[in-house]
Amino acid sequence: MRDAYHEELDALTERLVEMTSLTRSAISRATTALLDADLQMAESVISRDAEVNAIFAEIEASIFELMARQQPVAVDLRMVITALRMGTDLERMGDLAKHVAKVARLRHPESAIPNEVRSTILEMGQIAENLVTKAGAVVATRDVDTALELGADDDAMNKLHRRLFKVILSKDWAHGVEPAIDITLIGRYYERYADHAVRVAHDVVYLVTGARPDKKD
Amino acid sequence: MRDAYHEELDALTERLVEMTSLTRSAISRATTALLDADLQMAESVISRDAEVNAIFAEIEASIFELMARQQPVAVDLRMVITALRMGTDLERMGDLAKHVAKVARLRHPESAIPNEVRSTILEMGQIAENLVTKAGAVVATRDVDTALELGADDDAMNKLHRRLFKVILSKDWAHGVEPAIDITLIGRYYERYADHAVRVAHDVVYLVTGARPDKKD
Repeated sequence: MRDAYHEELDALTERLVEMTSLTRSAISRATTALLDADLQMAESVISRDAEVNAIFAEIEASIFELMARQQPVAVDLRMVITALRMGTDLERMGDLAKHVAKVARLRHPESAIPNEVRSTILEMGQIAENLVTKAGAVVATRDVDTALELGADDDAMNKLHRRLFKVILSKDWAHGVEPAIDITLIGRYYERYADHAVRVAHDVVYLVTGARPDKKD
Repeated sequence: MRDAYHEELDALTERLVEMTSLTRSAISRATTALLDADLQMAESVISRDAEVNAIFAEIEASIFELMARQQPVAVDLRMVITALRMGTDLERMGDLAKHVAKVARLRHPESAIPNEVRSTILEMGQIAENLVTKAGAVVATRDVDTALELGADDDAMNKLHRRLFKVILSKDWAHGVEPAIDITLIGRYYERYADHAVRVAHDVVYLVTGARPDKKD
């Protein structure tokens, strides 16, 4: 049986997994809001970001309380410190999903996404969901091999990001500057979302092995 | 006289102040590289980001070592945990300065910055420098009043950011899509740089008062 202290550490992991689940839902709904110009969906993403922030605030508070009371050492200490870091990344992922939803809201009832880039944005959304789903599984299972797989998905995201620029910079681009700006920002939000998901998974690698995979930015 | 343990904590503060100094220099030189289309300057910002990353890696290592060995409590515990967080923000600020420099390098020998937005970018660069300088002073002195002043500079940054969009979206914009994309990304880098500087200062508020100023994103 686990003692109360280790139950608290387990609860921390559960809260982090819950954050991955909420930020996955947020980016999924933000992508739909964007592609379908769905205002209600966009509003729901924007308002529900507060839930993610609230869970993070709870995680922070419980970590400080736990550190002060239990003075964790070795792997437990690494656990609480990486939990703080993972929480910071997940909270930011919630913000980024909200930013995507805000672009959808800004352009409603029009769509911010011209036809030429719809499929690319859809793919970016799917990869983002995929990454955060895997990150959540990695947090729950501490599976280092799965954690290291996230790099490949991130490469796919970067490739799609470059494709976006190619389309908006092509001589056939007929939509002018405003949609190009929207798409530049949206592309950046998805790409950053992916980076943070990779960091969450890599923090688990650090937690398990004590070494961090190489930093990319 | 300070004991060895508190000297280590002081050294941590000094390293963080050093990070603010390096990231200030980085954004300053990146702004110059951008406005003067100075390739050598851009290259120096890009290559010297590794210094910031190296200091952060040292800070991280010494914090883990210190926590394992000394098991800090109360305000000392808050100090090392906020130091980790401040280091993360400062490291990101180095990345963002590098991103600005990379746009300058990409467009060299042309300038990425058309005349209509030069003064706005210059001001954004100055506010970014101002913010990181104040953040460094706040880290060194733990002055809460100064820390809370950073919000006003950040508002000024957001105002300039909106002005940028106004220019690139005006009907007089004659430069087409590519410079608009560059400026969208550059504007975002400065704005994020400012956000991270504010977070560093607000972490000091948390360290001193135990309460965090309201989150903005």
